[in-house]
Amino acid sequence: MQVSDAEWSKSEKNIAQTAFKQAYERETAALIKEVREKASAIATLDDVWQLHDFLSAKRHEIDGKYDYRYSVLVFVFATLVREGWLHLDELEGMSVDKRTKIAALTRM
Amino acid sequence: MQVSDAEWSKSEKNIAQTAFKQAYERETAALIKEVREKASAIATLDDVWQLHDFLSAKRHEIDGKYDYRYSVLVFVFATLVREGWLHLDELEGMSVDKRTKIAALTRM
Repeated sequence: MQVSDAEWSKSEKNIAQTAFKQAYERETAALIKEVREKASAIATLDDVWQLHDFLSAKRHEIDGKYDYRYSVLVFVFATLVREGWLHLDELEGMSVDKRTKIAALTRM
Repeated sequence: MQVSDAEWSKSEKNIAQTAFKQAYERETAALIKEVREKASAIATLDDVWQLHDFLSAKRHEIDGKYDYRYSVLVFVFATLVREGWLHLDELEGMSVDKRTKIAALTRM
């Protein structure tokens, strides 16, 4: 189900970039909010190390997830839709084929 | 300059345990305060990862530093005094020899 660089039109790339950035900004903003909330509730050293573990996991997850290579982008978008950082209708303008693939992948 | 278990009297051990615990509680409380302050100032994802780096370093540092083995305790106390988590006069009741060693090490 790989979709290579060549199969993305210029206007699809624009839509993809905007959607990718939008999802990233949403997830980032939510993470910042969550970290501030968790930190404000810290009462013990265990809480501090739990925050550290949480950040380690999130950093690993976010570094891996936001991979803007056209060969993997349908999988990336499917993950972002499944997790709620992106809506399928924000990909409108991309080919029906790609949107069908992404929609199918979100249900896996 | 090693001081083994056998060279610590029972009353010295009590003083050492209290001082150790005191320093640990002070540093822990300061860390919790610092983490809450840093977290409340988080505005960007970079700030989040800076907090993560800070916590990684602190965890490593604290795990390594609070080593309650009598063979290394004079070094541990010297570090804690140097860093301001403990005062030399809180070790009163320990042998002059040990306190002299600790005081000398704090100046290294």
